Amino acid sequence: MDIIKGVTLTPLKIIPHPKGDILHGIKKSDATFAGFGEAYFSTIRVEETKGWKKHSQMTLNLVVPVGKIRFVVFSESENRFFDVILGEGNYQRLTVEPNLWVAFRGIGKDFNLLLNLANLEHNLQEAENKELNSILFDW
Amino acid sequence: MDIIKGVTLTPLKIIPHPKGDILHGIKKSDATFAGFGEAYFSTIRVEETKGWKKHSQMTLNLVVPVGKIRFVVFSESENRFFDVILGEGNYQRLTVEPNLWVAFRGIGKDFNLLLNLANLEHNLQEAENKELNSILFDW
Repeated sequence: MDIIKGVTLTPLKIIPHPKGDILHGIKKSDATFAGFGEAYFSTIRVEETKGWKKHSQMTLNLVVPVGKIRFVVFSESENRFFDVILGEGNYQRLTVEPNLWVAFRGIGKDFNLLLNLANLEHNLQEAENKELNSILFDW
Repeated sequence: MDIIKGVTLTPLKIIPHPKGDILHGIKKSDATFAGFGEAYFSTIRVEETKGWKKHSQMTLNLVVPVGKIRFVVFSESENRFFDVILGEGNYQRLTVEPNLWVAFRGIGKDFNLLLNLANLEHNLQEAENKELNSILFDW
């Protein structure tokens, strides 16, 4: 599936260590770093889906250090979807620029965790929500 | 145990959600935010201990979203230890300013994960390592 405008995938390093691995997240010097406002985690239960949400100003930088999460991004202007499974077996960072709809589903066996390294602090005013069934995607 | 100079604990919110909770990490406006350089994860196996490490410039902001980790901070100038167990049951952020020795041990049942929200990018030049047995602490 082709990527859509405003979406970037960046492969991330996992550095093996006998006492426990190190997993890269984001660096200030990374091309997709958009400034720092807030970092927070979201957990998503297996087979549950959160979304849709669209930010008018926030750029998301999403990393899945535990489990597996399927992300779907919908571009209204292109009328196209992008989807990707991140986490176990595909450790990449998903950057989503503003004005794209995002939803995600927990698909790991057990616990699924994402970290959003956002350029803005959480602010209800710049986020819009839609019911899951208002944008039809075949999950 | 009293806190030592350069160490701060900040309680963090967990926002319950039926599809999976939200866990706060750090905001730019937080008192202990020291600027953003890099975010990375470290995992630590049960009963394994990583340390000691001392940074000459990096301020660590440590959060444990999964499992339980015991952190021990040693201040040479005060000749004192500070220790705390973070993660499940005690969701707080541990801020460690430069020039303090840090070690940590995985003590959860299974998987233990920390996120470091550091004010600098990783740089071997500003970090010093010592063998675990070179600073005696009764783990």
